[in-house]
Formats: sequence, structure tokens, C-alpha cells
Amino acid sequence: MYTTFQCIPCFIRQACDALEGADLGEGAAEALIRRILALISKLDWSVPPPVIARQIQRAIREATGDPDPYLRKKLAANATALALLPAIEKRIAASDDPFLAALQVSIAGNIIDLGAKVDRDIDVEAFLEGAFEAPIDPETARELQRAVASSNNVLFLADNAGEVVFDRPLLERIGPDKLTVAVRGSPTINDATLEDAARAGLCERFHVIPNGSDVPGTWLDDCSPDFVARFRSADLVIAKGQGNYETLSDEPRQIFFLFLVKCAVVSEKTGVPSGTYVVKRIATGSPSGKE
Amino acid sequence: MYTTFQCIPCFIRQACDALEGADLGEGAAEALIRRILALISKLDWSVPPPVIARQIQRAIREATGDPDPYLRKKLAANATALALLPAIEKRIAASDDPFLAALQVSIAGNIIDLGAKVDRDIDVEAFLEGAFEAPIDPETARELQRAVASSNNVLFLADNAGEVVFDRPLLERIGPDKLTVAVRGSPTINDATLEDAARAGLCERFHVIPNGSDVPGTWLDDCSPDFVARFRSADLVIAKGQGNYETLSDEPRQIFFLFLVKCAVVSEKTGVPSGTYVVKRIATGSPSGKE
Repeated sequence: MYTTFQCIPCFIRQACDALEGADLGEGAAEALIRRILALISKLDWSVPPPVIARQIQRAIREATGDPDPYLRKKLAANATALALLPAIEKRIAASDDPFLAALQVSIAGNIIDLGAKVDRDIDVEAFLEGAFEAPIDPETARELQRAVASSNNVLFLADNAGEVVFDRPLLERIGPDKLTVAVRGSPTINDATLEDAARAGLCERFHVIPNGSDVPGTWLDDCSPDFVARFRSADLVIAKGQGNYETLSDEPRQIFFLFLVKCAVVSEKTGVPSGTYVVKRIATGSPSGKE
Repeated sequence: MYTTFQCIPCFIRQACDALEGADLGEGAAEALIRRILALISKLDWSVPPPVIARQIQRAIREATGDPDPYLRKKLAANATALALLPAIEKRIAASDDPFLAALQVSIAGNIIDLGAKVDRDIDVEAFLEGAFEAPIDPETARELQRAVASSNNVLFLADNAGEVVFDRPLLERIGPDKLTVAVRGSPTINDATLEDAARAGLCERFHVIPNGSDVPGTWLDDCSPDFVARFRSADLVIAKGQGNYETLSDEPRQIFFLFLVKCAVVSEKTGVPSGTYVVKRIATGSPSGKE
């Protein structure tokens, strides 16, 4: 899907959020925001929103001299999630439908998103508590479960640090031996990199690969040839988070998307309100950017 | 108070909101937002936020050719408020402390603000219902009541269409014969103009004057000489809304401010969380922009 003018306030907010707690003085912060305003005013908007966000994040890393401005927040999110995981895993194992429960927990984990406009002070534990009651399209969930059962080569596109911890119960049920987990190639917002995945305990159990890109999504034009080959050859692709949806919704292949709707633009595109737990299968995508 | 980089996302959101439902095509809307991004990147930010917002609203009026892009929303807000007023007035009259209740209702009315980032779908009736329980600094409220009793020449700076209806019970208790109500000089966001005040039933009961300016606040540098003279000679000034607070908080005279805190920047400046009902007396202001 393409960037629209309604996406622009969110980009500027993302940039301001990144400067919170950064060691820039007020003058340097103002100069950087001015530079970002001028930059966005001139960029080509006929790309998915994460491709614009990538340019902004690069400007922030350059101005702050910090290669990973969200590191502290990413470490905290992983720690919070790891502390909650054992109890959550027990509830999933004890539930009537562990695959569905693991799916609910994975999608609920998508609340940890410093790119989208979510409440910064959200209580992750309370939110996860609600996950087990969250309505999910049962037919698409079953379809996904069947696709997992009949696949030998599953590619799971991960999203954010912290969130990846809550993907672990689902990844276990997909099966480590037929699964590859892809993360971002380098730091961008709070998206998970190889280091973040290792800290989240994923690398011990699963084959984790970087996608070679610093777009907070999966923009194939910018990914490494190795990653793209794996994307093309996978018999099942599961993509977590709005950023992956925004960058891949027009790809001409079957993809299962798992995410929370977190903005008005994606709400309009998907036809469901903000806050909805989405399991969505796209069979062929649509090159127009509109479905 | 001065504009900071944290104010910028809100300006862009304001501009996008104004284009919702406007008759611009996607291409013209995008061109306008690009122009506004470039404009803000170059403006002097050492002015109160409403002075920047004014430039944006001018660009929107020019691009859309619509002298009052919020008219429909303003009419709807006035209609909603007028329908609720009789029941609210009864509750105020029956309460133990009608002045305090009228003050609570006036501040609650500040929820009708299309400039600040408030929930667009807020249920005004339910919100007003909560007004009677809202905590208000009792000492400053008493101080205001005493100041009203001892004043002969009160200037009330109104804020938004719809909101002005909920000011009426307070204005009645201040007393029509010693009161002047000031509104904006011309349309800007959903701020009340003379026409909006008339539609809200204010002009029948009170002396209402325009301030000569299209800043969504009270920026004396831009107000008419008549208005400024009245501002200087009033023995009591009461200012409604964040925009009036942002533009007048450094004025070297006593002003009582009544507003709901609706953003992180004002929350930080006032030291109270978003959503707080504020009755604040500033005795001398502070020329530094920081109190």
C-alpha cells in the first residue's frame, strides 16, 4: 500500500518520539525536525509508509550519532516480555485450542510498537491478559493452521523487539525444523534485529536470518538477494505487524498477515476498526495498492 | 509559551484533519500537505503554537477556497451543545454550589476542540455528565469567584464553537451587565467567531466583540487596537481554552485560565496530566516562556 497524506502526522510523531530521551539539545532537536519536515515535503510518496519512515530514521541516526536510538526501549520490552512468557506459555498449553491461543498471544504482542501511535504507557501484562478473549477470524485461523501442517518450508517475518518473545509459543507450534524467522538487517525504530532476536531467546531454538534492510517492514527492493530467494522459495510466508503488511500487501503471492490495526489508514484499508486482531490471507496481492 | 519541536506532529495532524471531508482530490491534498511541511520547516518557532497554526489554517483556506472549512463541524457542535443546555442548566441551578458547577461545565465544554488531539468521536453528553464530579482546584475557584464579585469590567475570552454554549451558565453567573465576551476576528479551526457566538445564543444576552485576529488563541500583536484597549482596561480577564493559555501565559497581567489539558507539551508546562480540569491564575506571567 502507498503512503497517503494521512500518514504524514505519524512520521513526524515518530521522529519526535525518537528524540525523547536522546542527548540532543533543544536547538539540535529543532534543527533535525526542520530537516525531516523539508525531507518529507520532497520525498516520493508512492511507496509504502515504512519506506518513508526508513529515511526519517536514517536522518535521526545520522544527527544523533547513535546507531540504535531505541536500544534501551528494545531491551526493556524484551525483558518485560521474557518475564511474562512462562505464565503465558502455561495458559496456552492448558487452553482448549493451543494453536489459536498462541496466535492470539502473537498478535497481542504487536501492541509493542514504537512506530505506530499506541499509548506509550500501555500495560503489556494487562493487554496480554485480554489476548485470550480477543476475537479472531476463526476460518482464516484454521486455514493458517492447515497451511502450517502441509508446509515444509515456512518463512516467518518478525516485527519488533519484545513482540518477538510473544511469537515464540506460535513458532514452537509451527515447528523449529521447518521454520525460518527473518528479522530486520539493521536497527530501525524498535524493530527486531538479529541481536534483539538473540536476546529474546529465538536464536537458540529457531533459524533466524536478517533481511538485509533497514526498512521497518519488508521492502523486497531493499532486501538482500539471499533473503529474497528464501521469500520466493518458501511454501508458506507469515508476516507479523503493520509494517510488514504495509510493504507486502501488494505482493503477488500468498501471505498470511498477523497484526493489530493501529492507525486510521490501515483501518480503512482493512475495513476493520483500530484495535482489531487481524489474521488475513492475501492470495495474490493487488498491484494498484488498493484491494 | 513558545512552540517546541514536540508541537509539530499536532500541526500536521490539524492540517490533515482539516482536509477530511474537504472537496480537494488526493493530488491537491498531497500538494497542500507538502506545502505545509515546507512552510513549517522555515517558520520562526519562537512564537506560541497558535501563531504557527494560524499560518497553516491560512494555507488551507487558500488552497481549498473555503473561508470557513470547519463550518459544518461548528454548526453540529453548537446544535449538540444547545440540545444539552437546558438539562445542564437545571442541574447547575439545583447543585449545592452553582458557581463551581457552572465552572466545571464551562471547562468540560473545552473538550470540543478540533485543534487539539482529542478523540474525534467523543460523546459530549457523557463527558459533560462527568463534569459535575471533576476535581477543580477549590482555592483558585474561590479566588475567581471573589474576583468576579469585586469586578465591574470583566473580559471573557471565548474559545470554540459549541464550547461557548457550555460557557453560558458561567457567563450568566458573572453577570451580563459587567461582562464582555471576545471571540476570534475570523474563522480559524473550529474557534468561535461572532457568527458562531450568535448561533450559540450568546449575542442575545451578552456584549460580544471580535478580537480582530485569526490566530486560534489571543495573540495581542495581531488583535485590533479596540480589543487590546479593552484587554488592558478590563479589571478581570478570564481566558478559556489551551489556545488562549498558550498565547497569554506570559502576559504581564493577572489572568484566570480555564481549560482542559489536552497535550503533552501543556501537561509538562502546567505540571498536571492530560485530561485535568484547570483553573489557573497567572499574576504576572513570565517573559521567558517558562514559569
